[in-house]
Amino acid sequence: MQMNPNKDTQLCMSLSGRPGNFGLRFHNHLYEQLGLNFYYKAFSSKDLPGAVGGIRALGIRGCGVSMPFKEACIALVDELDASAAAIQSINTIVNTNGHLKAYNTDYIAIAQLLETHAVPQETTFALRGSGGMAKAVASALRDGGYKNGLIVARNERAGRALADSLGYRWQAELGEERPQMLINVTPVGMDGGPEAGQLAFEPEVIQAADTVFDVVAIPSETPLIVRGRAEGKKVITGLEVIAIQALEQFVLYTGVRPNEEQFAAAVAFARS
Amino acid sequence: MQMNPNKDTQLCMSLSGRPGNFGLRFHNHLYEQLGLNFYYKAFSSKDLPGAVGGIRALGIRGCGVSMPFKEACIALVDELDASAAAIQSINTIVNTNGHLKAYNTDYIAIAQLLETHAVPQETTFALRGSGGMAKAVASALRDGGYKNGLIVARNERAGRALADSLGYRWQAELGEERPQMLINVTPVGMDGGPEAGQLAFEPEVIQAADTVFDVVAIPSETPLIVRGRAEGKKVITGLEVIAIQALEQFVLYTGVRPNEEQFAAAVAFARS
Repeated sequence: MQMNPNKDTQLCMSLSGRPGNFGLRFHNHLYEQLGLNFYYKAFSSKDLPGAVGGIRALGIRGCGVSMPFKEACIALVDELDASAAAIQSINTIVNTNGHLKAYNTDYIAIAQLLETHAVPQETTFALRGSGGMAKAVASALRDGGYKNGLIVARNERAGRALADSLGYRWQAELGEERPQMLINVTPVGMDGGPEAGQLAFEPEVIQAADTVFDVVAIPSETPLIVRGRAEGKKVITGLEVIAIQALEQFVLYTGVRPNEEQFAAAVAFARS
Repeated sequence: MQMNPNKDTQLCMSLSGRPGNFGLRFHNHLYEQLGLNFYYKAFSSKDLPGAVGGIRALGIRGCGVSMPFKEACIALVDELDASAAAIQSINTIVNTNGHLKAYNTDYIAIAQLLETHAVPQETTFALRGSGGMAKAVASALRDGGYKNGLIVARNERAGRALADSLGYRWQAELGEERPQMLINVTPVGMDGGPEAGQLAFEPEVIQAADTVFDVVAIPSETPLIVRGRAEGKKVITGLEVIAIQALEQFVLYTGVRPNEEQFAAAVAFARS
């Protein structure tokens, strides 16, 4: 954080069901490194309208929004950026003089990662999940020109709705399919969850793929990523997703874009 | 502030029409010195119900309340401490699991100062002012057993109401009276105000008094205090008031009472 807070210090914050340390360490570290008069604070709340009303009334500059608030927040903001409108799921609120505009920097991060990892558009993929983050990932894939997609979700209603809205297929299970890219957007493999330590796809499915992409960030080396690496696959990790989405939030809040070195140092600090 | 903010860091804040630096520097310095995981942020707002709703919804631990919110806040909290109930003016909100209890640490500070400066109860006094802070000062005098008081206020309605409620007299001007203690609770002498540099009482009135007490804290050496000191009078300054009231807020928020040395260092830091 800025070392000498004063009356002009601006506050940014996060709102989530279970606050973590990554975002606040990432943002505060960059504020300090770049000499910006900001402070970042993690919050939870049982009263979402009250919390968003507080952002507005107190002039809090920006707010990262995590589970379970990504969809319920939509009715409480004034404007949706294109990144959030298509998905109807937000993860970022920017407050400009009381006008709240919402973004989805997860979507932005996924789109960037597909490009920087040079995943060919004709790649077939299976995406496990049907929640708010799954929407962001699937929408970035669709908008990136990836046409051959399968949504795998046990929740038929949510899974079908997501697949239908984007022109993908839905199945409850992967079955005999062997897609080239495997994407996990469920809590499988997440520390502290009921499926910690578990593989999001079967070993033979991973073996048949080219690329594995896990949105789970804690740990970033999930069983899926570990096995993908061991098999020599291209891997895209949840750490890359949370780091880039946090970077884009930082730019939206402060108007300043850190360089590669500053970004890498902030990610390293945030994880430590 | 605490050097390593994390997800458990608690936020305290102030809410005022024109935020200053004293409170946030005082509190953040003590958090750091005492190793408490807190951060203090100054806010203003044009939406008081939204701001207090935000305190509740976000679990903000404490809030200092300044002009012009000291009375309007009363309807928005759940409970008034005795220090605020008698005055119907608050300057502090403590949030315990969503239950907001309001205090008036100005009242507490004034009561302490009359005692530590050993002002005899039979002292006659004139108090200039009739706003929220005047209420706190006059109530502390009344509760401290000071019976011979005169409220001097050009606003007859507010002045009479304050005087009547506490058993004091009211006059629009001091006239020929020469009280032993002179108390200024108006902006006369305050930097940046329309009456900056002015004396709150006439020179001959100061000469006739034993004690001068100025609630103005910026500067703490107001013309009234400077002249009182020059004449060898007992002086009580606005700096003592804001320092003690901030200390009592600190104790309410954190449950920790700094020692004399820590308190003095925090005051010195906050003014620097």
